[in-house]
Order: sequence, then C-alpha cells, then structure tokens
Amino acid sequence: MGWGDLGAFGEPSKETPNLDQMAAEGMLFLDFYTASPLCSPSRAALLTGRLPVRNGFYTTNGHARNAYTPQDIVGGIPDSELLLPELLKKAGYTNKIIGKWHLGQQPQFHPLRHGFDEWFGSPNCHFGPYDNRERPNIPVYRDWEMVGRYYEDFKIDLKTGEANLTQLYLQEALDFISKQQASQQPFFLYWAIDATHAPVYASKQFLGTSQRGLYGDAVREIDDSIGKILKHLQQLGISENTFVFFTSDNGAALISAPKQGGSNGPFLCGKQTTFEGGMREPAIAWWPGHIPAGGVSHQLGSVMDLFSTSLSLAGLQPPSDRQIDGIDLLPVILQGKLIDRPIFYYRGNELMAVRAGLYKAHYWTWSNSWEEHSKGIDFCPGQSVAGVTTHTQEEHTYLPLLFHLGRDPGEKYPLRFASEEYQQAVEHISGLVQQHKASLVPGQPQLNVCDQAVMNWSPPGCEKLGKCLKAPKSDPQKCSWPH
Amino acid sequence: MGWGDLGAFGEPSKETPNLDQMAAEGMLFLDFYTASPLCSPSRAALLTGRLPVRNGFYTTNGHARNAYTPQDIVGGIPDSELLLPELLKKAGYTNKIIGKWHLGQQPQFHPLRHGFDEWFGSPNCHFGPYDNRERPNIPVYRDWEMVGRYYEDFKIDLKTGEANLTQLYLQEALDFISKQQASQQPFFLYWAIDATHAPVYASKQFLGTSQRGLYGDAVREIDDSIGKILKHLQQLGISENTFVFFTSDNGAALISAPKQGGSNGPFLCGKQTTFEGGMREPAIAWWPGHIPAGGVSHQLGSVMDLFSTSLSLAGLQPPSDRQIDGIDLLPVILQGKLIDRPIFYYRGNELMAVRAGLYKAHYWTWSNSWEEHSKGIDFCPGQSVAGVTTHTQEEHTYLPLLFHLGRDPGEKYPLRFASEEYQQAVEHISGLVQQHKASLVPGQPQLNVCDQAVMNWSPPGCEKLGKCLKAPKSDPQKCSWPH
Repeated sequence: MGWGDLGAFGEPSKETPNLDQMAAEGMLFLDFYTASPLCSPSRAALLTGRLPVRNGFYTTNGHARNAYTPQDIVGGIPDSELLLPELLKKAGYTNKIIGKWHLGQQPQFHPLRHGFDEWFGSPNCHFGPYDNRERPNIPVYRDWEMVGRYYEDFKIDLKTGEANLTQLYLQEALDFISKQQASQQPFFLYWAIDATHAPVYASKQFLGTSQRGLYGDAVREIDDSIGKILKHLQQLGISENTFVFFTSDNGAALISAPKQGGSNGPFLCGKQTTFEGGMREPAIAWWPGHIPAGGVSHQLGSVMDLFSTSLSLAGLQPPSDRQIDGIDLLPVILQGKLIDRPIFYYRGNELMAVRAGLYKAHYWTWSNSWEEHSKGIDFCPGQSVAGVTTHTQEEHTYLPLLFHLGRDPGEKYPLRFASEEYQQAVEHISGLVQQHKASLVPGQPQLNVCDQAVMNWSPPGCEKLGKCLKAPKSDPQKCSWPH
Repeated sequence: MGWGDLGAFGEPSKETPNLDQMAAEGMLFLDFYTASPLCSPSRAALLTGRLPVRNGFYTTNGHARNAYTPQDIVGGIPDSELLLPELLKKAGYTNKIIGKWHLGQQPQFHPLRHGFDEWFGSPNCHFGPYDNRERPNIPVYRDWEMVGRYYEDFKIDLKTGEANLTQLYLQEALDFISKQQASQQPFFLYWAIDATHAPVYASKQFLGTSQRGLYGDAVREIDDSIGKILKHLQQLGISENTFVFFTSDNGAALISAPKQGGSNGPFLCGKQTTFEGGMREPAIAWWPGHIPAGGVSHQLGSVMDLFSTSLSLAGLQPPSDRQIDGIDLLPVILQGKLIDRPIFYYRGNELMAVRAGLYKAHYWTWSNSWEEHSKGIDFCPGQSVAGVTTHTQEEHTYLPLLFHLGRDPGEKYPLRFASEEYQQAVEHISGLVQQHKASLVPGQPQLNVCDQAVMNWSPPGCEKLGKCLKAPKSDPQKCSWPH
C-alpha cells in the first residue's frame, strides 16, 4: 500500500472511511518511513528495530540490490536478533502474528521460534499457483504446523481476484483479541495481511465495490476489517488500553498499476526505489483517551520506531548490547514533541539517500536498469526526472543531489550545488552519514543464497494432510536480484 | 491553486487547518472542475454559468490555444452575457467583488456595469512592475475609480515576496459582511484573491511560516483568511444563512514550481492543460445547519454550477433564452444526490476531452509545443506519458484515448481500443459529444485582438491621483497565444 492510498492522505476516490476515522480519532503521521523499499527487509526492521543492513536482511550479490525471501531463500532472521515479541514476553505479553511472516521459511526461522506464541498465515508471499513439482504452493500455518496450501486449500481465484483470506485473517484477529480480553492477558498482535500485494485479491462481498478496481476492492476490505477490529476493541472495553498503529511495508508497487497497483500520492516512483514513493508510508496511531483526536505529526518516523515504542509502552528497555535504529515515539504521540533524527534510505547494501529535516540528499540514484526498463519493468510509470530517476546506478557521493521536500515533495528540482542552502544542508547531512557509517557493523547478509531444496516441500504437519512433497537435491546458488 | 494544495486533499505538509476544518464542517467535492485550464475563461464561466466557448472567452487565433485578458486585450465580457450578480440584484442582493476581475479592463467591461455594486481590486493580474512608458502598472480600483497602482501604491516586493494585499482583501471582505449584516441585506461576495498566482506574495506575518516556501506562505495566508471570514459569519450569527463555496480557477501552475507553483496531487500536468491536473480543483461547500458535516461528494461538478446553485439559493430561475452549462447542486449538497452530467474540457476553441462517470475520453492531446518545451516551458514537469503528454497537437477524434479515472486518476494507462469496456464507454461519450456539438452556438471570440492603446493608461480617477498616463496610438493586432 502506498502513502496516497487512503482518503485521509488524498486518494481521490476517498474510499477508506474506517482508516480516515481512525486518523480523525488518533494521529496521522505524514513523514513516516519504511526501512527498505521492499517487504522482507522492512518487516525484519519493524520486528528488530534495526536497519536491514544490521539485522542481515540484505544482499551483497550485487550493488544496491533489493532482496527478499522467496521460498528458495536459504537465509532468514538470525537467532542473534532479538525480536519485539521475544522481548514483550518478558512483560507477560502473548504475541500473535496473523498473515505473512516473510523472515524465512526454513524451520529455524519459524515465528514461534522468535517470540510469537501463535501464528496463522504463510511464510512467503501468496504467489502461485505452482505445479508442486518445480515449485510447491505456499503453505498456510496454524502455529507450528501447516494446515493447507494457497490455491489448494486456501483459494485465490486469479481470474476474478476472489479470495476470502482477509476475512479469515480478520476473524483470527477478532478471536485472538476476545481470548486475550477474556483471560485479562496483555497481547501483541502483528496483523500482517497482504491483500494489496500482487496477485491482489478481495472477498466476494468487496469485489466490484471500488471505483479503483480490484486493488481498490482490496483496500476497502482492509479498511473495513480495521474498522471492525477497532470497534471490537471498543466493544470489549479495552480500546483505552490498546495501542494500534497502521502502516505499510513499502510504497505502492506502481509496476503493478493500474490493475494491481496503488498510489503514492504526489511522490516520486514506487516500491523498489528509495525515492519518496518507495518508502514514505501511510501511518496512523490510535489510542483513545491517550492520543488527542485529530492530531497530525511531522515527526520523521520509521517502522523501526514501532519496536522501541512498543517496548516503551510495555515498560521495557530496548536491548543495550546492540545498535537500535528505532526511537520511542511516545513523546511525539502523547505530548506532540518533535525529535530530531535522520532517515536512512537503503537499497540492499547501499545507503542511497538520507533525510534530515526537510532536506533529502541522494548519494546514489537508480530506478532500474535500462535492460529491465526496456522490457516494460517500470518503477516510475509516467514519471521521468532527468538525472534523478536514472536507469544506471549514478553515484553522487561527492556532490549529493539535494531536495527540499517541503517545497518539492516530488523530488523534481535538485537544489543548485552553488547555493548556500545546498552547502549548509549537505554539510549537516554529510556529518550524519559519517557518524552513521563509522559506527555501522553490517550483519551477516541473509539474502545471498537460494536453493530449491529449501522450498516449502514438506513443512511440519504436511504428513497429516498428505501434502508432503519430495524436495529436489540441494543446489545452493547465488540468488538473482536484478533490481 | 491546485487540487493537491490543501491538507484535506493530501498535501503532505498539511498546512491548511481552516480549509480542512471548513471541509470537516461542510462537504468536500473530489470531482470538481473549472471550465478552462486558464484564469479569465474560467472566471467568465463561473459568473455566466456558461462555457467560455459560449460566452466569448476564447480565441480563434490558433487551434486549441489558451487565452486570457492581459491588459492589452481589446475584448471582455459582452453586454449580452448575463452575470450572476446582475440576476441576484433582482432578489435584492448587494454584490461585491474583491480582488481580480479579469473579464476585461476597458470601461464597458467594468464589473459595476455587469451587476456588481462594489469592487475593490484590479482588472488584470498583478504582473509588473512596469515602467509606465511601454506598459502601465495595473491599477487597483475602489468601485468606479482607481485608487492606486500595484508596485506604486500597493506594494509587492518581488525579492522578498512580501505584499499585504491578501490582508487588504480580507479586511474588505469582513467590512462588507459586517455592513450587510448590519443593514439586514442579502449579499453576494465574490472573493477573488490571487496570492498564489505568480508573482506569489504573502504578508510579512506569513513569510517563512510554511514548509512549502513562499507559495506555501501564500496558501497559509489564504487559509487563515478564510478561517477568519467563516468565524466572522458565525460571530455575526449569519453562518446558517450564508452559503460559502471555496474553489480555484485552474490547476496549479507547475511551470512556476517549485518556488511559485503548487500541487495537483496525483493528477497529470497542470494549468494550461486539459489533463486532470489542469482542471480538477479543490472544492468545499459550507453552510452550517444545512450541509451535513463531513460530507464527501463524487458529483461531477463545475465552477459553472456555482451560477445555477446561487440562483437556486436566491429563489431565482436561470435565464431561459440561452444555454446554461451549470447545474443546480443543491440536491447534491443538501440531499446527497448524484446528478448524471458530463464534463467538457475545452482549450480555447477546441473540445479536447470529455468526462462521463469515471471515463475520460481525450479527442485531442497537447501539453505545449516542442519549441516552447525546449525553452524550458513545461506544464508537466517530471511527468511524461508516451502518446498522452504530447508536444504536438495530436488528434484522436476517431479513436479517442480513454482513461478510467478511478483505477487510473493520473491518466497514465489508456484503455485498449479493442476492449469491450473501451467500446461501450466511447460509444456513450461520443453520443454526448455529438449532442453537445449539434446544439453549440459559439459566442463572438473576445480574446483575439490586442492593442497597446487599451492598456490601463488612464483609468477613471487617475486625474485625482495624478496617475494618468498617455496612451500610445491604437495599433490593434492579433494577440499571440502560444499555448
């Protein structure tokens, strides 16, 4: 989902009454970022509070390449990383993930080995259908064991776009919340639905209901579900004890537009890029009785802050033995403070850009390669800014491209190198970069090696369902990351 | 101002609390249009309820050329046109225009000859400063007579961007409203401020207050002023008897970005074009006690509807001796109805595009000429859609380019000609076009002839101020309209 996909963020169909209402009752973040323009690294960052380059969710197979966790990935979330649910357990929290995990599908990466108590969902994207010979269909787990596979037991009709998955995930959420309320136990629910990821789907009752086509139907269903979750919290009388945050893991995938792609509003490009369209996200905090209604914040925020903020809410300290990139947003949310901090835009192993205040300096620019672009792979459809949306990797280390995101949110007008404004801003940002790089200890890259043998052939529980498949011989290869 | 310039429409700095509040208390129109991508024709359409091609505010000097009323224009609003204030007089209304008139500066076009009772403002744009030899500075009128000139008596500092004009216009508005309330007389106030038109200006107290630079400062001052006007209505106890509508006369002038140009949100291109960025406008209706708070409408609306709606509010009938393009929006505003009607996108004498429902068919595409584009004149900066944002005038009469504005608000993905969806939508729209063209009686074009002798050399009242200038010899020429 992209920054521009919600009515509250200016989507012209304005079809998200529940999320807009959530914003009206809570706080809207206008300058909130993911930690990566792609799914897996962004989610790893959310759960660890650390940049992907630290927690290992990146590749060194090529320079500045996006990488994620397809089902043949060998790596995943390292045991050495401390995940939010692991820490929350210390404060008595029960932790559930519903939906896409995406931090590795091998047994050692299972979410219940990394702090979650319950899981209903899948380890990988819902791509498919596959033939179960070259590639198995993605399994859906309940806790430790698979309970079926996408397209087989959990239908997704690619022709009509119909799938009732969001309804299943919604019911799981409502049930989990009810159970926790009944037992008076604190909980952390990571509701990681994926209906707006291609192949986009929606339940029958939402198909054809949006002005925006199937993608809009999916957004409407998510919006409706969130409305139901918030209402459920209110009806159970625990809304004033429950902090809810809504955001997305990367910008809208414009490459899938217009049928399966969303909107990044006035921003440049989309998913896969380190322009604003790739990493600036819709974000809403909700906590009735604590967050003043109708608040709007310009705090530079990050999905990694959800790690630190959640710990703070639970009365816990973040780990002190490692660098944590997230900050505690409670002073922002509860007292309207603004905390000075930069945003680092990484693509794989490269720091592409840095934002400080309203200035954003690009040290590298790249959309995608000419070769891919000529095949119709376009991360910036209809957009072209000379020297900015480049199709070769352009280095600007010595003279970064500088934009003022207030006057120029669309990153179209680089400031003149000779201007005093440029000199001052770049000097400041370069200091931040130096400091950042000097203390950076990159993690062991997890997204370098792929092997068809590690795919979801025989997940635990497959034997009970007669769904075990024979894995091919192990043949580890460098993963191919073209973007 | 553009569609994307208000917080309520997704401007990422969200700096328009008063307009956002106006929307929260009233009704937001998401699909509201001007009648032209340029100022004068759009304003003439607003006041006559008729398309510029009918009321004469167009040129035939070149095909599909935008034209307006620079101070050497010979034409202006014809006496044969009936303006909203002329009609409102019949219901006892006192009518005032504050700000830019722009329907001709020759004596016969004076607003007080066309239904207005009072005027404070200027006949033309606040361009300048001029030397008063080649070209006079634009006069500012109070009613029948000039009271000074821009840059001379009404300062605009082009270096700092400082000018207190919006404050003057605000005070005029508050005073007029107070006077009318005191005398218990109904009124029509046309508050036609122009602070966001280049050269952009703001009062000292607003300079530097926006994240968006000088343009944002101007927007903030307008926002603040509208807040004060609405509050004044409330304090006088007449807000429930006063219908207020906020909109703009064309899309943001991206050619002036980033320093003097605004935002059209997710839409394509800007002012001067018939893409959505050129003609889709922010629009808010406000009438406490009558319009349900927080309403949102997808009604296809037009500035011309303000003519018909205002007449309806005053209990008057629109003229029956001529074609009126505006419709009465009261059923939309008060009862939430949706009225089926097309939007016609004209550029000068050419019907460029038509919208019906969510479909928009382009019969001609053009941004601007290659020659101008190569000189840096760019109506679509950073945007380029092959075959759409063309730099030659491309005719698509027989196979219009069709867009679905719900799935593709940015007009990036023309539908396939062979698709059933295309066939059905184009058949429908072509019927509307045929009907429209069959009954169209173009008005005498007013924007063809320019003459340096008709400039504001010696406006009435100049002698009292010692501000009369000697007009050069009359030398009528075809005006040059490159866009």
